[in-house]
Amino acid sequence: MNSTTDRIDSYLSRELDKYIDETSRLCAQPSISATGEGIDACAVLVSDMLQERAIRVQRFETPGNPIIVGWLEGVSERTLLFYNHYDVQPPEPLELWTAPPFEPVIRDGAFYARGAADDKGEFVSRLAALDAVRSAHEGELPCGVLFVVEGEEEVGSPTIAEFVRNNKDILRCHGGIWEFGGVDLNDRPQLTLGYRGILTVEITVETMVMDAHSGGAHMLPSAAWRLVRLLERLKGKDERIQIEGFYSGAAPPSSIDLELLHALPDNESWIREHLGVKEFVSGLSGKALKEAVFNPTCNIQGIGSGYLGEGMKTIVPASAMAKIDFRLVPGQDPEDIFDKLKTQLGVWGYGDVEVKPIAMMWPAKVDPDDPLVRLTVSTAEEVYNRTSLIDPLTGGSSPVYAMANPLGGIPIVAAGINYPGGRVHAPDEHFRIADFLTGSRHVARILDGFASVEE
Amino acid sequence: MNSTTDRIDSYLSRELDKYIDETSRLCAQPSISATGEGIDACAVLVSDMLQERAIRVQRFETPGNPIIVGWLEGVSERTLLFYNHYDVQPPEPLELWTAPPFEPVIRDGAFYARGAADDKGEFVSRLAALDAVRSAHEGELPCGVLFVVEGEEEVGSPTIAEFVRNNKDILRCHGGIWEFGGVDLNDRPQLTLGYRGILTVEITVETMVMDAHSGGAHMLPSAAWRLVRLLERLKGKDERIQIEGFYSGAAPPSSIDLELLHALPDNESWIREHLGVKEFVSGLSGKALKEAVFNPTCNIQGIGSGYLGEGMKTIVPASAMAKIDFRLVPGQDPEDIFDKLKTQLGVWGYGDVEVKPIAMMWPAKVDPDDPLVRLTVSTAEEVYNRTSLIDPLTGGSSPVYAMANPLGGIPIVAAGINYPGGRVHAPDEHFRIADFLTGSRHVARILDGFASVEE
Repeated sequence: MNSTTDRIDSYLSRELDKYIDETSRLCAQPSISATGEGIDACAVLVSDMLQERAIRVQRFETPGNPIIVGWLEGVSERTLLFYNHYDVQPPEPLELWTAPPFEPVIRDGAFYARGAADDKGEFVSRLAALDAVRSAHEGELPCGVLFVVEGEEEVGSPTIAEFVRNNKDILRCHGGIWEFGGVDLNDRPQLTLGYRGILTVEITVETMVMDAHSGGAHMLPSAAWRLVRLLERLKGKDERIQIEGFYSGAAPPSSIDLELLHALPDNESWIREHLGVKEFVSGLSGKALKEAVFNPTCNIQGIGSGYLGEGMKTIVPASAMAKIDFRLVPGQDPEDIFDKLKTQLGVWGYGDVEVKPIAMMWPAKVDPDDPLVRLTVSTAEEVYNRTSLIDPLTGGSSPVYAMANPLGGIPIVAAGINYPGGRVHAPDEHFRIADFLTGSRHVARILDGFASVEE
Repeated sequence: MNSTTDRIDSYLSRELDKYIDETSRLCAQPSISATGEGIDACAVLVSDMLQERAIRVQRFETPGNPIIVGWLEGVSERTLLFYNHYDVQPPEPLELWTAPPFEPVIRDGAFYARGAADDKGEFVSRLAALDAVRSAHEGELPCGVLFVVEGEEEVGSPTIAEFVRNNKDILRCHGGIWEFGGVDLNDRPQLTLGYRGILTVEITVETMVMDAHSGGAHMLPSAAWRLVRLLERLKGKDERIQIEGFYSGAAPPSSIDLELLHALPDNESWIREHLGVKEFVSGLSGKALKEAVFNPTCNIQGIGSGYLGEGMKTIVPASAMAKIDFRLVPGQDPEDIFDKLKTQLGVWGYGDVEVKPIAMMWPAKVDPDDPLVRLTVSTAEEVYNRTSLIDPLTGGSSPVYAMANPLGGIPIVAAGINYPGGRVHAPDEHFRIADFLTGSRHVARILDGFASVEE
């Protein structure tokens, strides 16, 4: 350790209580995006907390909740983005909280409140890291910092993508720290490098103007059968998706990706037990099971037609509906896949079927060799005394792309204060105070080193 | 016309008001099997109406509503069965009735009340026919008569089949008149010779103990996909059902069946318009469309899995369910088909899937050349002055089999007072009084002639 990191670490140990108090102040202010409760007051509080540090703040109104943006210049031209959000999930069911959700309390070394872990404590940990780095450099900051703190993450971030596209110039930066980093169940620091994209569509089939008596099933066109056959056509028994051109551009895992995947802990038997899975798709197991995340998917979220109540109803259903999601790997584009799906259905004779896009998110993946990734991993090893778990691509999706792509394909990583037991979105949400300290130290080291890593 | 039929016809004209009054008396007594309202009082009334005619009556208690059985001996050993029911559908919505449903009223030559057409007026028309034939023969009856009047037809006749099986000896008869005969939209007498059987099953697939995040769709077994693939396997794109042995024993149409089918009026364009059908199954039309009723079916009554609400829910569904009905042609047996389905699913690797039988009805079909059929058709021509429409097999199912099969495969036909405009099961249910008269005359002629037709 050099003397700068010593000064950072001791600053954060010494001042820890101050930042826990600041987290209390922020968590005591409700900010429920689902209902709107306290949103404006919380946006004001976030602005205040940034301005107290002489950060230049601008509040952007959106069709939804305001986005708070903060800029602070550094010695280097290079700028590091912090993406966080000030809104929280609704606290219900209230009776399951040990203490009231908006009256923060410390119990057994952990900080409890709605929003503690997701994402107010983490936001304050960034402020702590920033303060520590400035203190270690006698008031100077080695690189610039850009804060983007939105207020609609818990309702699906409906406005952030457009906001970023429209404000590319003032959001210029060279890398970012996403919300929600931390350690795994065994306290090992973990880092996710990539997220799959998603295209969700609703497919509606109508074959008659009303349901008909099933005595006519030998001649009447059934919407249920038509939908079943359409779906069966969409994906082969080998799980290959049959849309023409679906896989073009889909990037296979690199050899580093494969190494990283194989190094991940084996959670196969945990999933089998936890979800009661007897056999994975296509009989996958071992290395092949880990690698399968690089296969894009065609999943049925829901399918419905006809009568599902007690007993029976002798009908041929006139309409049927399915919600389908495609998880897309890097190199695939949900808009392009949507067009190809529509074209393919036409080719198969399903041109009459209604296909409505419900949601699109783009894939995003940072290179395992990116300097910011290497910095994040090496500093995590210093702070946690353990090597990081690095997941090259996770099965889910993230709005990371909405920042990374328009801002020039900047690398974005996550580091933070969370652990899997934190009851995020549930009653008794919390973070462990020890994690707050290590997470702040980790982020401070990244901030300290970001100016000098090569791109 | 011979003098017996003259006497029958003039008796029925002369005494018409008396039978309308008797229908009023019966319809004024509610008898709603869905709620139990008035059932017992109506069963008593039916017994009384039979006993007033010196018919020997026995009331059979069942797990549900009582069944009233009446016997009357004739000159011949041969006995004709009348199957009717004294229960009715609930009258709701009451506000849509022009007059209260249990206060019978005559308007514009039609008799309005709940149960008028289905099936109380028709039951009284049988009594009228019986009285007319006895009167024409000075008190004697050429053949014996057996009445079976049940009280649960409107809730699916759950007890009648077992009752018949357990009482075969005392229900001995040589042919039967089913409820619900009459004329079509063009006042042409119509006769259905056969009904398809039905097997309804509920298929439940479970692949996990709970729904999982769709980010795992590349590896997690989806109940929705498993069900879709099972269904697709069950029936080929050519509509052939793929269960081993499904078609064995299924009787194809005879050459007379085909002649009768082709002689039926063409309702193809009416169905297209009424149901908004663009294309029939397999592109059927013309003669092939009419003949298709002899194809047994595999129909999806309903299918459901996962999320169907607004927007989306990124899950892999853990469970999925479908209700399937198979309509079976003469020669097929729903119990046998159920066993074959279970076996086939095992062979295909779906042994873990739950398959629950929901309902079974057997096919039933009378030979177009049967003497009772010929008698019914020839007497209809006398009464209506028109040839009958004869449907050799209708797509739907009927409890006819529950009498015809255990009683030695007796021929059963329908004749009666109904027309398609009678608003059966709906507010303002009614029959036309002219139809009551012709229907009674028709049934009286069948009763009069039944002793002397050859078997």
